[in-house]
Amino acid sequence: MSIVKKSQACQVNWRKLPAPKRGRLILAWGRVIENAQNELAALITRESKKVITESMGEIQEIIDMCEFAMGLSRQLYGLTMPSEREHHRLQELWHPLGVVGCITAFNFPMAVLAWNFCLAAMGGNTLVWKPSPKTEGCATRLKQLWDAVAIEYKDVLLISYGGADKALDLADDPNVKLLSATGSCEMGKSVAPRVAKRLGRCLLELGGNNASIICPSADLSFAVKALTFAAVGTTGQRCTTLRRLFVHDTIYETFIEQLKLQYQKLRIGDPSEPSTQIGPLISQESGKKMQQVLKYCRSLGLVVHGGVPLALDDHDYYVTPALVEVDKPIDIMSEETFAPILYVMRYHELSDAIAMQNNVKQGLSSSIFTNDHSEAELFISTEGSDCGLANINIGPSGAEIGGAFGGEKETGGGRESGSDAWKSYMRRSTVTVNYGKRLTLSQGIRFDEK
Amino acid sequence: MSIVKKSQACQVNWRKLPAPKRGRLILAWGRVIENAQNELAALITRESKKVITESMGEIQEIIDMCEFAMGLSRQLYGLTMPSEREHHRLQELWHPLGVVGCITAFNFPMAVLAWNFCLAAMGGNTLVWKPSPKTEGCATRLKQLWDAVAIEYKDVLLISYGGADKALDLADDPNVKLLSATGSCEMGKSVAPRVAKRLGRCLLELGGNNASIICPSADLSFAVKALTFAAVGTTGQRCTTLRRLFVHDTIYETFIEQLKLQYQKLRIGDPSEPSTQIGPLISQESGKKMQQVLKYCRSLGLVVHGGVPLALDDHDYYVTPALVEVDKPIDIMSEETFAPILYVMRYHELSDAIAMQNNVKQGLSSSIFTNDHSEAELFISTEGSDCGLANINIGPSGAEIGGAFGGEKETGGGRESGSDAWKSYMRRSTVTVNYGKRLTLSQGIRFDEK
Amino acid sequence: MSIVKKSQACQVNWRKLPAPKRGRLILAWGRVIENAQNELAALITRESKKVITESMGEIQEIIDMCEFAMGLSRQLYGLTMPSEREHHRLQELWHPLGVVGCITAFNFPMAVLAWNFCLAAMGGNTLVWKPSPKTEGCATRLKQLWDAVAIEYKDVLLISYGGADKALDLADDPNVKLLSATGSCEMGKSVAPRVAKRLGRCLLELGGNNASIICPSADLSFAVKALTFAAVGTTGQRCTTLRRLFVHDTIYETFIEQLKLQYQKLRIGDPSEPSTQIGPLISQESGKKMQQVLKYCRSLGLVVHGGVPLALDDHDYYVTPALVEVDKPIDIMSEETFAPILYVMRYHELSDAIAMQNNVKQGLSSSIFTNDHSEAELFISTEGSDCGLANINIGPSGAEIGGAFGGEKETGGGRESGSDAWKSYMRRSTVTVNYGKRLTLSQGIRFDEK
Amino acid sequence: MSIVKKSQACQVNWRKLPAPKRGRLILAWGRVIENAQNELAALITRESKKVITESMGEIQEIIDMCEFAMGLSRQLYGLTMPSEREHHRLQELWHPLGVVGCITAFNFPMAVLAWNFCLAAMGGNTLVWKPSPKTEGCATRLKQLWDAVAIEYKDVLLISYGGADKALDLADDPNVKLLSATGSCEMGKSVAPRVAKRLGRCLLELGGNNASIICPSADLSFAVKALTFAAVGTTGQRCTTLRRLFVHDTIYETFIEQLKLQYQKLRIGDPSEPSTQIGPLISQESGKKMQQVLKYCRSLGLVVHGGVPLALDDHDYYVTPALVEVDKPIDIMSEETFAPILYVMRYHELSDAIAMQNNVKQGLSSSIFTNDHSEAELFISTEGSDCGLANINIGPSGAEIGGAFGGEKETGGGRESGSDAWKSYMRRSTVTVNYGKRLTLSQGIRFDEK
Repeated sequence: MSIVKKSQACQVNWRKLPAPKRGRLILAWGRVIENAQNELAALITRESKKVITESMGEIQEIIDMCEFAMGLSRQLYGLTMPSEREHHRLQELWHPLGVVGCITAFNFPMAVLAWNFCLAAMGGNTLVWKPSPKTEGCATRLKQLWDAVAIEYKDVLLISYGGADKALDLADDPNVKLLSATGSCEMGKSVAPRVAKRLGRCLLELGGNNASIICPSADLSFAVKALTFAAVGTTGQRCTTLRRLFVHDTIYETFIEQLKLQYQKLRIGDPSEPSTQIGPLISQESGKKMQQVLKYCRSLGLVVHGGVPLALDDHDYYVTPALVEVDKPIDIMSEETFAPILYVMRYHELSDAIAMQNNVKQGLSSSIFTNDHSEAELFISTEGSDCGLANINIGPSGAEIGGAFGGEKETGGGRESGSDAWKSYMRRSTVTVNYGKRLTLSQGIRFDEK
Repeated sequence: MSIVKKSQACQVNWRKLPAPKRGRLILAWGRVIENAQNELAALITRESKKVITESMGEIQEIIDMCEFAMGLSRQLYGLTMPSEREHHRLQELWHPLGVVGCITAFNFPMAVLAWNFCLAAMGGNTLVWKPSPKTEGCATRLKQLWDAVAIEYKDVLLISYGGADKALDLADDPNVKLLSATGSCEMGKSVAPRVAKRLGRCLLELGGNNASIICPSADLSFAVKALTFAAVGTTGQRCTTLRRLFVHDTIYETFIEQLKLQYQKLRIGDPSEPSTQIGPLISQESGKKMQQVLKYCRSLGLVVHGGVPLALDDHDYYVTPALVEVDKPIDIMSEETFAPILYVMRYHELSDAIAMQNNVKQGLSSSIFTNDHSEAELFISTEGSDCGLANINIGPSGAEIGGAFGGEKETGGGRESGSDAWKSYMRRSTVTVNYGKRLTLSQGIRFDEK
Repeated sequence: MSIVKKSQACQVNWRKLPAPKRGRLILAWGRVIENAQNELAALITRESKKVITESMGEIQEIIDMCEFAMGLSRQLYGLTMPSEREHHRLQELWHPLGVVGCITAFNFPMAVLAWNFCLAAMGGNTLVWKPSPKTEGCATRLKQLWDAVAIEYKDVLLISYGGADKALDLADDPNVKLLSATGSCEMGKSVAPRVAKRLGRCLLELGGNNASIICPSADLSFAVKALTFAAVGTTGQRCTTLRRLFVHDTIYETFIEQLKLQYQKLRIGDPSEPSTQIGPLISQESGKKMQQVLKYCRSLGLVVHGGVPLALDDHDYYVTPALVEVDKPIDIMSEETFAPILYVMRYHELSDAIAMQNNVKQGLSSSIFTNDHSEAELFISTEGSDCGLANINIGPSGAEIGGAFGGEKETGGGRESGSDAWKSYMRRSTVTVNYGKRLTLSQGIRFDEK
Repeated sequence: MSIVKKSQACQVNWRKLPAPKRGRLILAWGRVIENAQNELAALITRESKKVITESMGEIQEIIDMCEFAMGLSRQLYGLTMPSEREHHRLQELWHPLGVVGCITAFNFPMAVLAWNFCLAAMGGNTLVWKPSPKTEGCATRLKQLWDAVAIEYKDVLLISYGGADKALDLADDPNVKLLSATGSCEMGKSVAPRVAKRLGRCLLELGGNNASIICPSADLSFAVKALTFAAVGTTGQRCTTLRRLFVHDTIYETFIEQLKLQYQKLRIGDPSEPSTQIGPLISQESGKKMQQVLKYCRSLGLVVHGGVPLALDDHDYYVTPALVEVDKPIDIMSEETFAPILYVMRYHELSDAIAMQNNVKQGLSSSIFTNDHSEAELFISTEGSDCGLANINIGPSGAEIGGAFGGEKETGGGRESGSDAWKSYMRRSTVTVNYGKRLTLSQGIRFDEK
């Protein structure tokens, strides 16, 4: 039996279980994860190479999601509505889709699964998870903990180990009602048309190319701290990592000096050391790609600060994060290089900075640092950021689980986590009830016998 | 300038107009449509060949949508939410996407545009409409009326006349942020992967293969009336037309006799005559296709009632609606033949009837006729109908604008019209605000300077 | 310092704590309650004399509320909305009220506090609790557990021990922003005008006079079981206890026989015995009141089954539950006697049964037993039950926490527990923002300088 | 038959009419009002003495409400929810209350009725309106127009002409399910306890004592214009009129000079003249009251600018609006004098200004003028304004219909107009359905037969 069929097989029992009971199993899973927090964080750090404090944060995110899903399991709110016809009424109900496929990346080897699984499973779906080949141990461990608490419902979470071919299998399988895929835009472009061909559903969380705008009224020392984390956290390998910075020309010099200073103080090293702020890149390939990009920047005559490889051990690729000062947007800035490279540029008019920020293919995260109320409101208005996430005085990286997470344009348009993102994992049934004795058609249409 | 570029050009002014002001223009359009109700209904009947009473209903649907959109224009509700961090807060805002492409079919030459246009335009989008080549006059007229009331914003509604190639142009154009397409599953399968390739958005309303289940406790004479309309209304050419009927074996004989009797009383003829219930099919091709299917049914030894062509005039294809009695589901029942053919079958257990109903590729509309409370609830539960629309004691055809309209599986998953279908035409911005002085990361992550 | 002042004093720190952090403290409280489940249930049984299985259910209800409140703590959703004015926008935010006063009764000595406290505290309020003098031990224990988990925020929950005078103190205190009071209609009428005089807010959960209607299509043996629990559970001392029964005359004889049989099998005795179904009344006074009412019924010549005192021990009042058959509604039926007396009556037309059900001053809970879909829908329609709770094929007693709980008319109109009942504990702030440069008045009013 | 009984009599037919059909009648009423806009505005001006441009705005507000109510008539959204029990489900439905009593004041003789009537009637209620004795002609005219469009449903709107005794009649009548009263806090304190005594419902919109805070970063010339309208519009007789002003001391001198200058330019005179900005007070009594207050201020040694009576004609009381400069809050500032008196004061710390603003009994409207993002966010946070309305860079006076309108504390806590204010006119029915065969109690309670 294929893994999707196996998942489908347990679907009926799972969806028949009342939602609050499903929610309690998910909460129970969250509790065992909480109890195993240190072990799990160490595992994340070992496989994804992210620093241990961030791994701890990732575990916290799972716990948060389990608690949030428990609350939602008594909500899953549809609407009741009046009808235009006497003795009729309308309501909408939300039902599970069936099997959800979930593709996750190495950089959040547990939390992204939790985003998807907590909502999908709470809603009555089962889930087949294809984790990154780099972090399969994380997947195995979460699955073990699920099996321990949901003894009768183990197959609600199944793992498909493997590479891109396994992802394509999920894309092509008509029994995968929703494919939730997190990764690069390229990955998205490979799976989305295959799912579309069979008129299936996708929830895509693809690449970002996130920017911040620093306005004259910004608290500079605060902004420097926040943006340093946004640019170098997870060694620049978050989908929400800050990649482009637009600084008002009146403060540019001061700001860049402070930022360089802050960069020099960063503690780079063993990610399992609690004091480390930056660990190695995920792979030597990532390191090489980063160097190519920096080389290209230098070839254009641009000033590059940092970006220097560090021989801290003999297997991992460590590097100081890079700042690249540019005069005007260059082509490479429209690409997402998954490494700590931050392009910094001046701007004069806020409308120009917003236009430059928006002028990339991706649309995930964005932020502004300002204490000017009109600027802040403009930034979040229809004329402002075109991204799914728009932060004011917060870097673009990281998000609370309570809001809907995701982005526009080539980021793929999906939303996960909070708000009503759970609806992506459900189908809506619009129910119209007639409890009277007369045939009344909508829009007052007559179809009489005469 | 391409038509999409032209639409894009007027987008900025339109979206800057406050939503309630956009709503009032849409309401004004609704008023001129109301004033021209008779003329417009006659035009629909002329082009689409639907009977005049249904054309009047179609106009009413536009008016309803305009009024509903006016109400929504002060709502477009996002959420405000508490943050897990001190001096932070979250909110979500909904912004327009930009240019919406809209493909409509001949059978609802005006109402489907209104569903899309009222929501899209109210939300701040502009729309490029590719109507069916068979009903371009309807499109031209609605556009004229828009131009008359929205003098400064004429280009908010633009028409792309032509055939399938024009549809593909919209599918491929990266400036069409959403492609809302109503038509056959084949059409959906041709456009959806093209839109997916560029990571755009689709809202698909594709084919249906709608069924009703008649339970022993049903009010039979009521059901007969309701289902006759559902099966033969619009000459069987609605996406929600009843195509399959599952009748409990204890009442089968009685029911089928009543249904045949009802069919014999139908008034077939000139669609512009107010008393006509069934007009001609849209084309000779449709008639031929219908005859092929009936021929195939007869070749299987099945009893076919009706389906007889009528030579009422020398240009249109008139036909008596057909009933085909089947013992068990046959392959052709899984296809949507866009003509008045109704397959009728016995069932013994409700769970079997539901399973048969669901066992087709499409998932648009469904209904049950019963006065048994448990049966009615089962039908709308997770274990019941897998369609987007589930009616109790109402035929599957037709819907009020207040609920979300659309279907699952190969019907394409889109939702239009009521409830929160407006969100399909918008992008969500999740805004996180920090108004404090401290850097606090979500999930309690520490990134200290030390 | 008065207890209200003391509560107010800790309010600022508590409301500044981010809502999800408040939610986590409430969830932590739920966990310690879960761990102490047996001990707490025994305490409830000791003080309130309810049977131990029901006490266990009461603890479960607290746990459910804590989990639900945790979920809500990331929601507290207000709305964002478009403005009719350019460069303006609207949003609504929900803020805590301040100090909430909470009056609870003996019959749910812990759960009703949890309903109020979980929502009030999650929303940022503090709470002063005046429990029933009969169950102050329950109050003390819950408070101890709160103090243990919320070390820095102990005063978020404070107890005002005492009788009616303490309730009036809360009613009169202008610093009690909301008085949430559960008890009799008389209590409600004594506190409500006092709160109204100072233009404060009340949330009232007062008396019920709950009925069920048994239709011909009902599953009788199921209904008998469900209604027996509804009538005699908690020895008839729930606000949702079934007190009136309307049985269709075609099934009356059968039904009443089965019901009497069921009554005879009830296990009455020591409430701490797990197999006991009915414990003693809360007091000798309650027993006397019950006997007075039954005596009155007999004086009218009515048939009274049961209602016989049992000398099971020397301190508590045990009694067999009573059935009173009536021909037509009598005056005493419009009173809520807090004891297991069930009035049973025939009806002929459903509309009459509904009218009789509604024709009392209270409006808490109601139910219908039917398998007729039209009857079920009629019952929950505008023309049906006028109560806050309307159940189909469920007795009127008991409710899940996910729905809003409360009733209409003299029941007081308050809503607690699920849905958006949390809003009762909050104040709404409608925020309008102008981020443009121009003075634009709403409704297009001009106030020009000229 | 009493007027309330008469209203009740037509209630059944009205609430049976499907909500969208009720909505269309309300929209039709809106259209005839739109057509009679000039005539109606003149009538408002004649009776209430407000300037004609404001009267035109009041008519616009009615039209807006009618359109909004039409949209809502297809919404009236309750929720569907999952149950914790197998084969159970929950939903909530909203039903009309019955007869709504509505008391309105002279200053908005038509719009406040429209707020209440559009929502109440759309929801299926009937309404008995007691207008101010000063503006009964306005009431009569609106009623005539209703009668003209709602021929079969005239009694849905009935008028009770008269004074305070008529208001008390509505307060005491048990058939008035909701009393919606707009007026002074005194009026509220007279009716609220009477309604509470019978456990009825109130929706109170009572006095305001509205303030603005002017921060250093505010655009002063803009603020001066906005606040002048807020203070003197409707001759200071709006419930949202600006009455107290806190100006940062660094800008105090400049601001007060500009404000005085602006006051000198105001055009006072015949309210029916389109160019007039300020008409007479409603009565000689109001003028005398104003002079008493100003006299008291002068007796304290305070500087009073303006407040000079003008003998423009021989029947009305005209007066120049007054500015009173104060050093610290004085007792009279905590009263709402219904006349154009504006108290102006310096502040140093924003937190002090907010505290002073909040330190009054009323809690209707408030505003801040600032371009400082942190200040703006603080103002609308839990630590900011305690009013129902909080505006940023908008004066406190006036509001769009899309948001919920109303205030806290002695303003009475009611909400009218937009958002989900319609729920105040409805009762919620929490429906739990069991469509299975087993008795399952909530919270897992067991009540077994053994």
